[in-house]
Amino acid sequence: MPDEKENLSLGEKSVKLHKKARGVIKTNCKIDIDNFTDKTAKTSEEIYNNPDAAYELTPKENLVAVISDGSAVLGLGNIGAEAAMPVMEGKSVLFKTLGGVDAMPICLKTQNTEELINIISKISPIFGGINLEDISAPRCFEIEKALIEKLDIPVFHDDQHGTAVVVLAGFINALKLTGKNVEKIKVVVNGAGAGATSVSKLLLNYGVKNLILCDRTGSIFNGRTEGINPFKQEMAEITNPDKEKGQLKDVIKNADFFIGLSAANVVNQEMVKSMAKKAVIFALANPVPEIMPEDALEAGVFIVATGRSDYKNQVNNSLAFPGIFRGALDVRAQRITDEMKISAAHAISNLITENELNPEYIIPHALDLRVPPSVAKAVAETALKTGIARIKI
Amino acid sequence: MPDEKENLSLGEKSVKLHKKARGVIKTNCKIDIDNFTDKTAKTSEEIYNNPDAAYELTPKENLVAVISDGSAVLGLGNIGAEAAMPVMEGKSVLFKTLGGVDAMPICLKTQNTEELINIISKISPIFGGINLEDISAPRCFEIEKALIEKLDIPVFHDDQHGTAVVVLAGFINALKLTGKNVEKIKVVVNGAGAGATSVSKLLLNYGVKNLILCDRTGSIFNGRTEGINPFKQEMAEITNPDKEKGQLKDVIKNADFFIGLSAANVVNQEMVKSMAKKAVIFALANPVPEIMPEDALEAGVFIVATGRSDYKNQVNNSLAFPGIFRGALDVRAQRITDEMKISAAHAISNLITENELNPEYIIPHALDLRVPPSVAKAVAETALKTGIARIKI
Repeated sequence: MPDEKENLSLGEKSVKLHKKARGVIKTNCKIDIDNFTDKTAKTSEEIYNNPDAAYELTPKENLVAVISDGSAVLGLGNIGAEAAMPVMEGKSVLFKTLGGVDAMPICLKTQNTEELINIISKISPIFGGINLEDISAPRCFEIEKALIEKLDIPVFHDDQHGTAVVVLAGFINALKLTGKNVEKIKVVVNGAGAGATSVSKLLLNYGVKNLILCDRTGSIFNGRTEGINPFKQEMAEITNPDKEKGQLKDVIKNADFFIGLSAANVVNQEMVKSMAKKAVIFALANPVPEIMPEDALEAGVFIVATGRSDYKNQVNNSLAFPGIFRGALDVRAQRITDEMKISAAHAISNLITENELNPEYIIPHALDLRVPPSVAKAVAETALKTGIARIKI
Repeated sequence: MPDEKENLSLGEKSVKLHKKARGVIKTNCKIDIDNFTDKTAKTSEEIYNNPDAAYELTPKENLVAVISDGSAVLGLGNIGAEAAMPVMEGKSVLFKTLGGVDAMPICLKTQNTEELINIISKISPIFGGINLEDISAPRCFEIEKALIEKLDIPVFHDDQHGTAVVVLAGFINALKLTGKNVEKIKVVVNGAGAGATSVSKLLLNYGVKNLILCDRTGSIFNGRTEGINPFKQEMAEITNPDKEKGQLKDVIKNADFFIGLSAANVVNQEMVKSMAKKAVIFALANPVPEIMPEDALEAGVFIVATGRSDYKNQVNNSLAFPGIFRGALDVRAQRITDEMKISAAHAISNLITENELNPEYIIPHALDLRVPPSVAKAVAETALKTGIARIKI
């Protein structure tokens, strides 16, 4: 929608807004300087004697680092640290506005895996959580894994897990509408990046038995040698139980769900027609999805969701991460587990009542303000129940 | 001054304040989320195509990192990253309140020199300036030097240069009152840390010819072998032209100025009495100075300054760094030069008129709100004149 007065595109409007505000995040003081004493050293001493006091005496309990190396930014790809800043700032605005979380955008001028692990762990002490963002696969898997092992605060790669939670939320509601059994459906996930891998793992954890992951080479199966890396091999071992081989157009036949986290226009109407009855398509490539919703619907699909704000059923990560971090910070969770993610997905899907639920409304609106507190409550409760929380609330 | 109602010390009051506020710095959004578009990528693209656009499209033009490794914090010494946070936050509050600068506190969990240089340079892209803080000597010299060479934004170690600027401001006014000639006076500086070294260099640059630097071993002179490192050797070559040898008590004889950045009670009344007529003492060890002001005055000193807020003539870094960074950021200075520091010192000392100037008032009050804009103006003008500025204002 262009700005009517000046006829600006949304992109131009964004640039104008950033220029006018000179960036969108600033720091503020919580206290008046007159209340300040020159004996701050006493506060430092308290923390030196009891590191846990940092949660009460510094912003740690509500401070998340939004960290990227600029290697896989939105539709732009590898644009580097400086250019990644507006996206990290935007994320910080969503953290603050939707979750009440103080988020500090940090962009790192290195794309070396070991170095990123080291730098992030060395800057971590002041934060209550780390949100990794727009780091290219497969480096993102290794970086996240190493940091989760090293640090005692939540480390969350939103492109993986935020996406997975929102997809699962939509999946739960779409499945309800189809009346199908989760253990019997066939799910095809296209893409080999961070999102596709994490979505697949969470769906398996939720109960899907027959899930096939595809990359550019075709379906991934145990025994495939072409275009395999350790992360894809791991997926090959836990997916595709029937070892279906072939291209996407082959394995999509009779699929109940297609979930695309891949590229524009890789699905055509013929492929949609080859799917099972009451087929569901999540075409999440952005800005141009795997298939345009109108084309999918014309080909007879039952439900379609995209990542776009101008269509029904938008799968948007801002439904997940503000509430997930809010909940995790509230109980000082040590990490964010699959149980917590699944409870977040249920919290999102449950906001749509049985009466409201229909093929054009399976996911709440991205800025539905009921979402973050519901997600936060579910995540905190699950953390408490499963022994991940450090404190009770 | 204890809190009268609850009888709290200033230190306890500080802890209470930090606990109540849960840390003293937070992030805020400059824009309303409704103005946000999901086309932030367009803004990132602009910066990718023209890195300088980061100054207009992100907070870079007004964003400073306040970075410490927690190795030399106030009176506490090596307390580490977590415990350093309240001090870095306090600094950030002063940056914002006095200079209008958005300051991001960052505490690093490493004290390895090479690693600190690497991490700080890798996190630098989003910042318009780097303020190093509470890093122990001599590592701080090497870290600052390497970063100044690597980065094209101001890198300023406040414990060195902020201190030097405020000492020089007081020195200029004290010298006026003594009526002595800067080229003929004898200055003794005690201490071998970051502050003493930087103060000595700036005083030499200002015109002092006979300056003797002392450490625990005694006076530093060219040829001394005991307790020498490359940084002290560098100082030996540019100070102490007469190669005066001996302990502090020996070399302080006939000194016109004594400047202590060392330890409590290392100067006694006898030593003061051995100084030249109209002697000036800056006893800056904190909280207990090299000699208490009342003892120095009783021994006949002409002017005495300390780092304490409960005595006259407080030498406080907050007179310098907010205005210096404000001025440097305003013209996008590439670095902060000695000329800029000397102009900052003049701006501070000039705020006291000839009529006001007296031995008990050589330095403006730490929270004199005339100071930051005066310093900023002087620093920006000098940067423009000397070709250090990137833009005109």
